[in-house]
Order: sequence, then C-alpha cells, then structure tokens
Amino acid sequence: MLSVVVEHIFLLVLVTLISVLQNAFFATKVEREGKEHHANTSAFERNRNCMDSYPTFLAVMWCAGLCLNQAPAAFAGLVYLVARQKYFVGYMGQTSQMTPGSLFGKRVLSFLFLKCIVGIFNLLLVRCFGNDLKDTVETIATAASALLLIP
Amino acid sequence: MLSVVVEHIFLLVLVTLISVLQNAFFATKVEREGKEHHANTSAFERNRNCMDSYPTFLAVMWCAGLCLNQAPAAFAGLVYLVARQKYFVGYMGQTSQMTPGSLFGKRVLSFLFLKCIVGIFNLLLVRCFGNDLKDTVETIATAASALLLIP
Amino acid sequence: MLSVVVEHIFLLVLVTLISVLQNAFFATKVEREGKEHHANTSAFERNRNCMDSYPTFLAVMWCAGLCLNQAPAAFAGLVYLVARQKYFVGYMGQTSQMTPGSLFGKRVLSFLFLKCIVGIFNLLLVRCFGNDLKDTVETIATAASALLLIP
Repeated sequence: MLSVVVEHIFLLVLVTLISVLQNAFFATKVEREGKEHHANTSAFERNRNCMDSYPTFLAVMWCAGLCLNQAPAAFAGLVYLVARQKYFVGYMGQTSQMTPGSLFGKRVLSFLFLKCIVGIFNLLLVRCFGNDLKDTVETIATAASALLLIP
Repeated sequence: MLSVVVEHIFLLVLVTLISVLQNAFFATKVEREGKEHHANTSAFERNRNCMDSYPTFLAVMWCAGLCLNQAPAAFAGLVYLVARQKYFVGYMGQTSQMTPGSLFGKRVLSFLFLKCIVGIFNLLLVRCFGNDLKDTVETIATAASALLLIP
Repeated sequence: MLSVVVEHIFLLVLVTLISVLQNAFFATKVEREGKEHHANTSAFERNRNCMDSYPTFLAVMWCAGLCLNQAPAAFAGLVYLVARQKYFVGYMGQTSQMTPGSLFGKRVLSFLFLKCIVGIFNLLLVRCFGNDLKDTVETIATAASALLLIP
C-alpha cells in the first residue's frame, strides 16, 4: 500500500533531502566561523533565521504537495532553497542584519500557500458539486510555477 | 488515490495554513520592532520561543489527526494558535521574559499527546483482539476537546 | 482507510511522541536554570541547538519511514534521541559551547538520509524495470541499523 503513497511524494522527499543537506552545510559554515571569530557571528544569526523558517517551509511544501500534485510544489521548494542559499552566502560579510528568516522567499511561500488553498477549495467543490477541476488546476499550477523563476 | 487521503487531512492542512499566516504576522511584527528599537527586542525573543515550539506543535497535531480523526485535532490546534497569539501580543510590553515557548499551550499539547497515545493503543487493541473502539474513542475525544475552551 | 496508514506509521508516531516529551523536559530544565542564574544560560543555548535540528530530524525520520519501512527508521530515531539526551545532560556544566545542534547525532541522520535515498532509488527501479528489491533492502536496512549501537 505504502508504495502507492511513496509514488505521490517522492519528489517532495527529494527536495526535503536537499534541504537537509543544505542545513548541514549551513551548520558546518556556522561552526567554522564561530571557531575563527569566537563570537555570536553573522552566520550564526543567519543560520538561526533560516532554521526559524524551516518548519514553516516544510509544512507549506508538504501540504501543497499533498493537496494538489507534487511536481509544482517540489519545484517551488527548489526555488525556495536557492533563495535561501543566496540569503545565507551572498551577505556573509555584513554583520548587523536581523531580518527574520521568514521574510526571504516570500513569493515562493505565498505560491505554495495559494496552492494549498486551491487544493482544499477544489476538494470541497468535488464534495459538494462532484465537479472535479483538479486536472485544470494542476495544469495552471504547473504553468504558474514557472513564474517563480522571474527575478 | 490521494484525494481520499486529502479528505482525511484537509482540516489539519487548514490549521497549518493559519499557523503559517500567524508566523508571517509574528515575523513582520518582529522586523518592525527591530527597526524601531535597534535591539534584540522582546518581540524577537518571543517570536523565537514561538518558533522553537512550532515543530513540536505541528508534529503532535498531525500525529493526533492521523491516529484518530482530524476534527478534534484541528480544533485543539486552533485553540493552541489562539493561546500563542495571546502569548505574543498580550505581553508585548514586558522585556525580560525568557520562558521557553513550549511552556504556553501546555494543556492543548497534552490533549493532543493523549489523543495520539489513545489512537495507537486503539490500533494495537484492534490488531490483538479485533475489537475496534475507534468510534467510541472519537466521540469521547470530540467531546473532550470542548473542555479546552475552559480558561 | 486511515487505519491502514496508521499501521504503517505507528512506530514513527511513538518516537515522535517520545521526542516531544524530551522537548518538554528540555524546556522545563531551561526554565529552572534560567530562574536560578538570571542569564542566557548554557542550557538555554543547548536547548536552542536541539530545537534547531529538531525539524531536520523529524523530516528525515518520517521520510525514511515512509520510503522504506518504519522499524529501522524508528529505531534510528530512538538512537538519535538518546544521543540528544547525552548532548543536553552530559555537558550541562560547561558554559561556552556554541556547536550547532545538527552536528551531534550526525551518524544517525546520515543513516536515515541513506535510507531515504535507497527507498526512492528502489521506487524508480520498480517503475522502470519492475524489479522490486524492497524486501532485500529492508532486511539490509534493519541489519544496518544495529551498527548504530556501536559507539
């Protein structure tokens, strides 16, 4: 039975694994910088911001992947991970940045959020009217996820 | 296949989405206060406490929702979110509060925790004796979740 | 329908519940120490490290449990919880330890990570060649999880 489930989530699992690798990368970066500077460094703060928004990201991505289909959700997850990487690496030098982590990658999270709502709305429609728009919605969602690539 | 699954979790997804919105609200509050005071503000600390307990809350709510049924779990999740909102907003003025986030909403988390245990216990009972108490347990759980409203 | 799912995840739920209990234990410890010393104590820092790596742990454990089977994943989760307990309690006295939380229990997380990849790889193999190695892989994974006990 479970292999049927796995077939519907393996892209989400892959993105989750990549995000875990990224977390490990951040953690080693932070440790190295902490040893060099003996202080509450910028990387430490940044890593914490990333970690703060990590559960939110995981929750939204998995909900979006379960409610509609996994492909656009996993793609949006990848875009989010790239944004996070830029956030962590790109501004490594600056020291006084207290932006909470949930403020980067806002666009990706909003997209995933919308996908969840559309998915639930679609479910309720199916329940009440028996009118399954899932295929249409999925096509639109997949097309819309390409918009995330616009900087 | 997945739409069958979604039907059993869409309330949980809704509560998760509300919690994500709340996280975003907390993050913007923290950023605004950080800009005004240029310091490691109280809201910052409070937000971190909330974030610290957020994965715990998500894990317990989803486990409870999957093990028994979703309605009481989602309701308890809502009560938890209200408690978190009160924790964040109500004491905004005080500066030296280091209470870890997992200490508010204890009652709700304990309730969800109990639900998980009852669900697993019920599963083992079904396996061993073939005596399915799920309906009885669900009714009790739904009734018990009303107790959470007592302040 | 859901009871079929629960049968495949109840060990994971149990480990999650134990980890939640451990979180609550950490939080009370931190609160007590915070009251005694009136400072940003070592336990506070340590608890935050544990919390930082908690979503990573949960994500990897659940993915591993869903992709292959739950028994080795839940066992590895237990080993991780023991390692975390040691990390939190054993060095309670030292004050200046800034190691990020994701750096303890590296072996367990790598094991779970490998399990996920093997699970997805196996799924793709089944899809392409119809050659289901799941039973063999599960046996190897269960045996390999015994290796985690070696200190």
